[in-house]
Formats: sequence, structure tokens, C-alpha cells
Amino acid sequence: MTTTEQFVGYAVLQPYVKGNKDTELKVHTFESRPLESDDVEVEVAACGICGTDIHQLTNGWNRANFPLIPGHEFIGHIVAVGDKVSLLKIGDRVGVSPVAASCGTCKECTSAFGQLCANRTPTYNGVHKGYKTYGGYANKVRVQESWAIKVPDNISSEEGAPLLCAGITTYLPFKHHNLGPQQRVGILGIGGLGHLAIQWARARGCKEVVVISSSSNKKEEAIKLGATQFVLNSSEELAKRSKSLDALLVCGSGPSTNWAQLLDLLDDHGKLILLDLPEQPIAIPPGALVYRHLSMVGSFVGSNVDLAEMLAFASETGVRPWVEKVGNSCEEVNNGIKQLMSGKARYRVVICGKGRQ
Amino acid sequence: MTTTEQFVGYAVLQPYVKGNKDTELKVHTFESRPLESDDVEVEVAACGICGTDIHQLTNGWNRANFPLIPGHEFIGHIVAVGDKVSLLKIGDRVGVSPVAASCGTCKECTSAFGQLCANRTPTYNGVHKGYKTYGGYANKVRVQESWAIKVPDNISSEEGAPLLCAGITTYLPFKHHNLGPQQRVGILGIGGLGHLAIQWARARGCKEVVVISSSSNKKEEAIKLGATQFVLNSSEELAKRSKSLDALLVCGSGPSTNWAQLLDLLDDHGKLILLDLPEQPIAIPPGALVYRHLSMVGSFVGSNVDLAEMLAFASETGVRPWVEKVGNSCEEVNNGIKQLMSGKARYRVVICGKGRQ
Repeated sequence: MTTTEQFVGYAVLQPYVKGNKDTELKVHTFESRPLESDDVEVEVAACGICGTDIHQLTNGWNRANFPLIPGHEFIGHIVAVGDKVSLLKIGDRVGVSPVAASCGTCKECTSAFGQLCANRTPTYNGVHKGYKTYGGYANKVRVQESWAIKVPDNISSEEGAPLLCAGITTYLPFKHHNLGPQQRVGILGIGGLGHLAIQWARARGCKEVVVISSSSNKKEEAIKLGATQFVLNSSEELAKRSKSLDALLVCGSGPSTNWAQLLDLLDDHGKLILLDLPEQPIAIPPGALVYRHLSMVGSFVGSNVDLAEMLAFASETGVRPWVEKVGNSCEEVNNGIKQLMSGKARYRVVICGKGRQ
Repeated sequence: MTTTEQFVGYAVLQPYVKGNKDTELKVHTFESRPLESDDVEVEVAACGICGTDIHQLTNGWNRANFPLIPGHEFIGHIVAVGDKVSLLKIGDRVGVSPVAASCGTCKECTSAFGQLCANRTPTYNGVHKGYKTYGGYANKVRVQESWAIKVPDNISSEEGAPLLCAGITTYLPFKHHNLGPQQRVGILGIGGLGHLAIQWARARGCKEVVVISSSSNKKEEAIKLGATQFVLNSSEELAKRSKSLDALLVCGSGPSTNWAQLLDLLDDHGKLILLDLPEQPIAIPPGALVYRHLSMVGSFVGSNVDLAEMLAFASETGVRPWVEKVGNSCEEVNNGIKQLMSGKARYRVVICGKGRQ
């Protein structure tokens, strides 16, 4: 185990308030966690700005621990390894997801569900053996070897970074719920998650890929991404689609989401798969579940096994995030956050470049 | 097709209001629906009083159509058959569930999910080819041959009647979700549904059968029914059981149900299976579904295939409702309803005897 070192990143010191410059990200030097014998140290080359980062920066989920350096979908090269690291080496290009470590021995870890390990370490806003964890808005991050996933050569760091969270989040339900050529799949919301879900649906050969969005100006892009149908998210339009889907991936929801109407889109036995995390409890009519054998299920990122599989599938099929690159200065990163919050990002903002200053 | 006939039953003519005698059941003569060529006519010998009957009598679900004659779990002998009836004959003893007919040709009907057929006929409070349907609180009921299920000889009509709704409702999730020796199953609520769910869990050999009830005085009976553990439904007691179940069958819920705490009882990947129908939307915390891969599913009675299978399994394993018998006069039936509404029934009230006067 090597000692701690000084890393530098961009942190908020208090809850971020839109329009209040004092609450924006600032350069923050911190003492890293020690490099454990099974850890690797990654020099971040590209880091996506995830919707989760906004929930955490603003403390919308009420569990942020300041100072907070976000970033849980990034790619970089390994620049140091612990003495028991065996499969990776300095110079390898790896991706890191929202999980930075897990116990490796519990029933979740040993059944390829390590992302549910009760003792997992969140990549940021977590605690690992007594040390706070900081994410990929920093110059370097230390993570367990088993959670640093080699990235195929034909995926660039800038395009690949968002696969580590948005990509795996949207990939996993297709795997676990066997969504493919027999299924009519709906995707609610075209953003960081949704634009990848559409591509997975196409790559998996789903029978229908029905994209639902409240922005009619996204229709053309939805079709380009792989949608077979585009539906405007209005009561009138949704009512015409009653019982038309086998699964609905909810990639964007909020206080005004009408869950009863979303359930109505599902055919009997259908599944509503929740991928985003609205900040409020959701209200559902029990009759919809009972009378039509519907189910509501959740899905959370993926294990290291899933991550490697997802990257290989993306490599083969050409699924890639659509990214807006921003530079790696603190000001550019703050602008990237504003761009995501404005709802105008098409579709994932990625911080590009090594170093933070 | 034979013509309509005069039948007699016990009806409410307006929403039932507890304590208001004018709103109680009254003797009601009505014109039956015609006996179609694929129908049988059943002379009711025993009919359970179901929790659904209370929701409908009081119009709690806001879809009652008065006059309303309840009764959707009953057994009796066939006294007439349509000219195309081929598998059943006059004299056969059959049971009828909440479904009295279905199309027989849709994808649900042809995959043993006829209870979800979009054109099914509810046994009461429905409409069949233009005629209102009336249930087993009447002397006779006409139903489609395929939905009249032969009852094994070792199941009496009085004990068997509740199997046709409470029994099938609680049996089906064990079948569809493969609950058996590997599963720790929780059952919330010991009433008409719950006391049968406990018995199925025992008959299926479930690893643990954890019964949760707000009545500590039901503990002894829960154990006798097959519970391996009894838990008082209080925040303190439930908090001790975090992540202890693979499936939770919700057999009794209401406005005060804490859904977040119920989800917390489930281990990762666990299922909350909703069997009753609370009259209000239910509020769930999305994080529970997402971070722990939980699911919420519903289940609704069963198909005619399931019904025959369930009766055979009950016949073999000795699963039987615990019944309180009431006579077949209008006054006795009204008393039976009051007994169920009081929460004191142990555990299913059954109207016994042919004829209604």
C-alpha cells in the first residue's frame, strides 16, 4: 500500500444553486486515498457529465457530502498499480463506472452483480476504508483493479466515457429482460440515457423502438439513432398507444410524470423499467399491476462483468454516445454543467483532456 | 340458445353504507342472461363472501353498476347445459371464479391467461352480450362451460368455494414466480387471502414462511396454518427484518401501508407481489427499485387451466380455507357481510345452502 498523494479536481463546497456563481465548481486540491495493493491509479483523459452529477451537486437526493468532486464515467490510462495487481499494467487504457470497488466475496459479487454489493464503494461521494472518494472531475482516481475495465481500441476515450454510466445503465435491461427481436420497446426521454437506449434497442434488433419525447424537434435525431416510431409525450398521443409495448424504459421522469398513463402503454405482462431516479416518490394505480400482470422493475448500472460485455458489444455494433466536448479548465467544466442543466445538450457533455487547473 | 329465465338473488340497489339498513342486500328477482350454446347453468350450493364484494357493495372502486348481486367464488351442480356443451353434463359439481367467460381465441386465452382476456365477462357486475351479469348470491348463475371447473370429490362445496377466488389469487404467484424450497416468502395480512397464501407456501415447501400481521392475537393461528415466523406489523419489528425476504405477497393493504418499508423487507432482486387492490394509488420510492433491482408485480386470479391445477393441488395437499358458514336467507347473508367488515371473520365467510328467499 502506497501512501496518499495530492490530487486536484473541481469540487463544489456547498449545494450548487443555479445562477449563483459562488456555488459553482472550484479548483480543489485533496489528499487521495492510499493506493491499496489491489488498486490501480487512473489518469483521467475524458469524463462524462452525468445527470446524477446534477442531482448530487444540487443535493437533490439529499445525500451529498461536501466538498464533492463528481465524475463516475471516465476513461484514462493507468499510471500506477498496487503490488497485487495482476491483470492490468501501467499504460493500459481503462474505463471506470459508478462503482470503484466491491468486496468480491458476497453473493452479489460472485454472481456478476457486484454493483449491488452492500460494501461497494461509489466512485465519488462515497467512503473507502475511511477515505472519501472523489470522481473523474479530478486529474487522477484510484480504483480497485477489478472495476477498471479495459476499453476496446476502436472506442475513443471521449466517446467511450459516457458508456461507463449512461451506456451500462441502458444496456443492462436489454440483457436481463431479454429484449430483442420479439419485443416492442418504448423509450421515454431522449437525453444522456435515452439516446443510448435507442441505439441498444436497434443493435439488439428489437421489433419496434418507440421513442417518446416531449420535444418534437428531437424527432429527426430519434429516427437517426434508430427509432422506428416517434411519439410526442402528450396525453392525447399516449392514449392512442394503449397496450402497444412489451417494455418501457423510463430514461427521464419528474414530478409531472403520469405513471398511470405510462403503465397503460404496456401490453399485458409488460414491464416498466425504471432507469432514472426522480427525486420524489412515484404514485402508481395498483389495479394496473394486478389486472394486467404488469411489473415495475428497477435497474442500476452494471457489474464489471456486464461492463466488459457492454464495451465489447458497443465495439462490434458501433453504438456510441453523441457527445459535446468541453475543455478541461474549471470554467469550461462549469459551462458544461450549465449546458446539461439547460436541457440543450445533444446528448452527453464530456470533459476532454488530462489535467485539472 | 334458450331464453332468459327468472332467477332470484340478494342485491344492493345503491351503495352500501355501514350502519344504514336501507342500503343492505335485499331479495331481488331478475331476468337471467340467455343460456348460450356453450353455457352451463349452475345451481349455487355454496358461495364465499369475498373482500371484493365489500369494495363493490360500497362502490369503493367507483365502478359498481346497481342493482348488484355479488358472488364470484361458488360451487354448485350443473342443472342445464347449452347444446354445444361437450365436456360437462347435468349433475356435475363445478366451481366458478371471478371470470364467467372469455373469447377463447386471443393470445391470452390461448396461452392459459384467459383471466386477462380483453373480452372476458366478470362473473358479476359485468355485461355479457348485452346482459348484466349477477353472481353467486343468486340461486343460479349461467357461465361459459370452459369457466366451470370440476371440483375434486374430497373438497366440499362449503370449503371449496373460497378456493375459486381467494385460493386461486394466492396460488398463482407461487406458480408464476417459482416460489418453493429456495425462497423466503413473506405474507402481509392474515385474512381471506393471507390464510390461504400461508397454506400454499407450506404446501410448496418454501424455505421460510414469514407472516406479518397487525393482530398479535393471530400468531397462534398463523403458526397452525404453516407460518415459520410471525412478525408484528410495526415499524420497529419490520426494521429488524430488512432484506430478509425473496418475495412478499401483499394480501392486505390500505391507506396507512408504508410501501417503502415493505420494499425494505426484500433482499436484492426480490419481488413485491400485489394481490389485493387498495382503493388509493400507492407511493413508492424509486431508489428502492433501482439500487436493489427489486420489482413490483401484480397477479389477478387465474385462468381455467390454473383453476383446475389449483383444485387438484389442494385436493392432494389438504389446503383448505378456514370457513365460517352462514345460512342462505337474506338476513343471514347480510350478517355474513357485517362479520367480514368487522374484521373478525376467521377467515372466510361462506353462504351455504341452495335457494335464495
